[in-house]
Amino acid sequence: MRILILLGSETDVPQIEGTKKILSQFKVPFDVIVASAHRNPKKVAKISATAESKYDLIIAAAGMAAHLPGVVAANTILPVIGIPIETKSLSGFDSLYSIVQMPSGIPVATVAIGGAKNAAILAVQMLSLKYPKLKVGLKALKHKMEKGVKI
Amino acid sequence: MRILILLGSETDVPQIEGTKKILSQFKVPFDVIVASAHRNPKKVAKISATAESKYDLIIAAAGMAAHLPGVVAANTILPVIGIPIETKSLSGFDSLYSIVQMPSGIPVATVAIGGAKNAAILAVQMLSLKYPKLKVGLKALKHKMEKGVKI
Amino acid sequence: MRILILLGSETDVPQIEGTKKILSQFKVPFDVIVASAHRNPKKVAKISATAESKYDLIIAAAGMAAHLPGVVAANTILPVIGIPIETKSLSGFDSLYSIVQMPSGIPVATVAIGGAKNAAILAVQMLSLKYPKLKVGLKALKHKMEKGVKI
Amino acid sequence: MRILILLGSETDVPQIEGTKKILSQFKVPFDVIVASAHRNPKKVAKISATAESKYDLIIAAAGMAAHLPGVVAANTILPVIGIPIETKSLSGFDSLYSIVQMPSGIPVATVAIGGAKNAAILAVQMLSLKYPKLKVGLKALKHKMEKGVKI
Amino acid sequence: MRILILLGSETDVPQIEGTKKILSQFKVPFDVIVASAHRNPKKVAKISATAESKYDLIIAAAGMAAHLPGVVAANTILPVIGIPIETKSLSGFDSLYSIVQMPSGIPVATVAIGGAKNAAILAVQMLSLKYPKLKVGLKALKHKMEKGVKI
Amino acid sequence: MRILILLGSETDVPQIEGTKKILSQFKVPFDVIVASAHRNPKKVAKISATAESKYDLIIAAAGMAAHLPGVVAANTILPVIGIPIETKSLSGFDSLYSIVQMPSGIPVATVAIGGAKNAAILAVQMLSLKYPKLKVGLKALKHKMEKGVKI
Amino acid sequence: MRILILLGSETDVPQIEGTKKILSQFKVPFDVIVASAHRNPKKVAKISATAESKYDLIIAAAGMAAHLPGVVAANTILPVIGIPIETKSLSGFDSLYSIVQMPSGIPVATVAIGGAKNAAILAVQMLSLKYPKLKVGLKALKHKMEKGVKI
Amino acid sequence: MRILILLGSETDVPQIEGTKKILSQFKVPFDVIVASAHRNPKKVAKISATAESKYDLIIAAAGMAAHLPGVVAANTILPVIGIPIETKSLSGFDSLYSIVQMPSGIPVATVAIGGAKNAAILAVQMLSLKYPKLKVGLKALKHKMEKGVKI
Repeated sequence: MRILILLGSETDVPQIEGTKKILSQFKVPFDVIVASAHRNPKKVAKISATAESKYDLIIAAAGMAAHLPGVVAANTILPVIGIPIETKSLSGFDSLYSIVQMPSGIPVATVAIGGAKNAAILAVQMLSLKYPKLKVGLKALKHKMEKGVKI
Repeated sequence: MRILILLGSETDVPQIEGTKKILSQFKVPFDVIVASAHRNPKKVAKISATAESKYDLIIAAAGMAAHLPGVVAANTILPVIGIPIETKSLSGFDSLYSIVQMPSGIPVATVAIGGAKNAAILAVQMLSLKYPKLKVGLKALKHKMEKGVKI
Repeated sequence: MRILILLGSETDVPQIEGTKKILSQFKVPFDVIVASAHRNPKKVAKISATAESKYDLIIAAAGMAAHLPGVVAANTILPVIGIPIETKSLSGFDSLYSIVQMPSGIPVATVAIGGAKNAAILAVQMLSLKYPKLKVGLKALKHKMEKGVKI
Repeated sequence: MRILILLGSETDVPQIEGTKKILSQFKVPFDVIVASAHRNPKKVAKISATAESKYDLIIAAAGMAAHLPGVVAANTILPVIGIPIETKSLSGFDSLYSIVQMPSGIPVATVAIGGAKNAAILAVQMLSLKYPKLKVGLKALKHKMEKGVKI
Repeated sequence: MRILILLGSETDVPQIEGTKKILSQFKVPFDVIVASAHRNPKKVAKISATAESKYDLIIAAAGMAAHLPGVVAANTILPVIGIPIETKSLSGFDSLYSIVQMPSGIPVATVAIGGAKNAAILAVQMLSLKYPKLKVGLKALKHKMEKGVKI
Repeated sequence: MRILILLGSETDVPQIEGTKKILSQFKVPFDVIVASAHRNPKKVAKISATAESKYDLIIAAAGMAAHLPGVVAANTILPVIGIPIETKSLSGFDSLYSIVQMPSGIPVATVAIGGAKNAAILAVQMLSLKYPKLKVGLKALKHKMEKGVKI
Repeated sequence: MRILILLGSETDVPQIEGTKKILSQFKVPFDVIVASAHRNPKKVAKISATAESKYDLIIAAAGMAAHLPGVVAANTILPVIGIPIETKSLSGFDSLYSIVQMPSGIPVATVAIGGAKNAAILAVQMLSLKYPKLKVGLKALKHKMEKGVKI
Repeated sequence: MRILILLGSETDVPQIEGTKKILSQFKVPFDVIVASAHRNPKKVAKISATAESKYDLIIAAAGMAAHLPGVVAANTILPVIGIPIETKSLSGFDSLYSIVQMPSGIPVATVAIGGAKNAAILAVQMLSLKYPKLKVGLKALKHKMEKGVKI
């Protein structure tokens, strides 16, 4: 059980704080790799194409013409979760459309703009299909939220 | 292995033709239930809350103030895939934002506006974590797409 | 005569300061309950379904995929007033569309983004159908506004 | 018990078919008056200012720079329900913002773009505060919707 | 020669600083009146309906559901210039559409969001049809701008 | 008394039918010239720069990156009225922003998307400052509109 | 002298009719290759990475989450021109943002939504830096446009 | 080898810092001229019309109704690169549409909102068609980006 988190840039690392926090709470191991779809296309292609041997699924965060999640999805059959990053000029409208509006055949499971925590929870939900023990934690999380604990 | 497809209205049935077609190709069994988050809230709550015993994951399609996927996600720990339906006046901007902009804690895996086929492929990708045989079909699909077969 | 104000989160309490202020000026009693459509779906369903016995109408404020007002409206025949909360990334476009674009059969009376005071005034206008004495206060308010008193 | 329906133009009459149908089902009497906020400002001002003596509430439908509901609300303390009409060039974005984004002090209870039926249901919900018998019909409507009857 | 500047609220006075500055440079006399289309509808109607006897044209600034310019235009045959004010949540999209999208028959000459200076220059251009001397100043302004003087 | 109507393309001629009709009703003489800001920049510059000797004001209609009205305004001190033309892909959002969002110093009096008739009425209102006889017609038009005559 | 035109799908071929027509008029040889950034990522990467040996520049047309131009630009130092294709639900807002909002380091020269002809003219302008003879044709085209010949 | 950078206003100079920095790194000489399409139309027309004799291509940055790049393109056959500047009220939506949505015949190669560096890189890519030595630097830049050097 292992998740790959991909970021286009070192400056995006703070954007996935929530993702890392939630995955750690669920004790889901993960690797974080910085590789831009535009600056490191070969690296991204290689990582994506070989991810299946090491990872269960991939989370990719990107902003503006946010191609990273889609480019990753093009190179793997693993589920890919996309986090649209809020942007300075267009607020994230650009990131959101660039990630969610994928053509037929290559889905990206898109969460809210800045939805780092939800990307992690969605990842755990997917993993729980294979590792049912995670369902215990997911239910505990739901109970905590019911009681008003902020996550 | 079974998927639940939820729709808010009989009139939305044509919107999931692609979902049904892809799931059938992968021989993934599914049920289609029409239940509106607004007109049948109790039915939706009950179906969602008990879905875990029968289903691996849920696909929900909705338009306008498209609450169905989020309401379902609130009542289950299964992964929920949301399909924003194109709308007459606001083109689907309303459906998209209502589905993807979920608050922290309750993710919905959102696909493109009208992305019925991608919802199914994403569902199969998730299922393949638990049922690795599906990976064969996913790879075959990728090969077919590479050769230009339209899916 | 009593109004229920529902909020999805403790952090939204400042968003309804104006609502509380206006209702207090009109001496309209109200209860404020924090219950998220997504984190406390059963609580929200129960509160909404039983609200008729205690309340005349419901005001619900929510942001992002702002399902709370619509989910409440699905469970009651009381009038439901929705306040779209301004959001960080999409400014409130998401909250507004998620609240106002309700499907046929389940209306939400939507006010402006951040329209806390107007939600209260609209509530008093509705109550004045049943409690005509409130019309005196509404007229007084209109006169004060005519004279430039800021409300 | 009587409702006033205001329209800016004869050409908008088809836009309130749903409103008339629902009100008739509830046996709520109503008058329809065509008076434009821009072409008949005095007529609109007079009708609004005197509406309180004849009507319980007002429904106003308008498109583009849809000032009618707001102008009516400025002249009365009755609740005003606004229906944004879908427009040719801007799809109703213009009508929606012009109706819902009212300043503090003068609310308009806004329904969805083209939400003619919901305007009527919201009106009946408001009236039911004063005329509790209407609650029977509202509950019957909810039951019919639960059973899938399209309204 | 006299211009009327109308504002919906005292808080909008800073929004027309540029208008006043330019008009003063051109020695065009003007009056500023604060009167809200929604809080002082009768005052606005009266001022607009009688403006023809005192003024050559009207400039009206408003934000959100910015009805003031349109309501003024409905009550006069004078040219009305509308200034959409930038707004907190929707940035001025709401003000702009509410002012510019006027129906056939009642135009508002709309300038840019926050275009206080341009409203004044446009006003002087209109006045110059009647008072050709103003053309000298307009040409001087154009020359100054050509030389890079910021206005 | 004469108005210049400028169009960027022969294909835009139907877009100003309403302008021509209203001006003819008011017996305001006008010339129509087709000259694109992009394809005939010198012609546009020359026409604009010399318009003052023949015309009282200019109406310019344009779509997409609708530069024509602004380019004309840059070259004249006459009032320039801009008509944003509805466009195929972006509905007129592009035309509207390109025309109305002029920088400080060079206003364009913008009417609604497709507002051909309003451009003419606004032109007549401006002309009436110089030719007060036109006020009779403007008042007659207002009376006709009050009586429901569609213009 | 040779240009590569890339398309994501056979169904997009009609979208570049204008591109082919203009290039043919300029006698600029070109190849058209259909290769999707998502369905044929390796093919796209290979074509882009080796394009420099055969082509002077690349034109890429794509719709929705239109990654093709950006992915191509990531793999080459040739200039890449992107044509956003109009889309069914979001009109091309999605295609436009996905193509134009490229991160620092990897530009895509973006033309209008559906701007097939302009992509070709821009390509010829770029080529004319190297092949000055093309300037004759570009000037002839400008003259034809000045005379009103529709291109 | 020389590039012309045009700006509409002195206040926009900080917007092209990135452009100047990149061009300097590539040792591409350039001139910066401040000339507004609206305040200095003749200067802009003259500079554009004669640019061919001194420059290889033109970069133009502009905001709001950002006509500068299009007006320049109208007067030259040189490639024109447009930089939409982020704006206060509409965030750059206005600048982007005004620059990219050019009509058939007159392209502007548009980069991202605030894309000063990409404008320079695109310019160098174009120049490299004529000056192949620049390809060495472009490849070096790509390598640096691959290694994570921020540009």
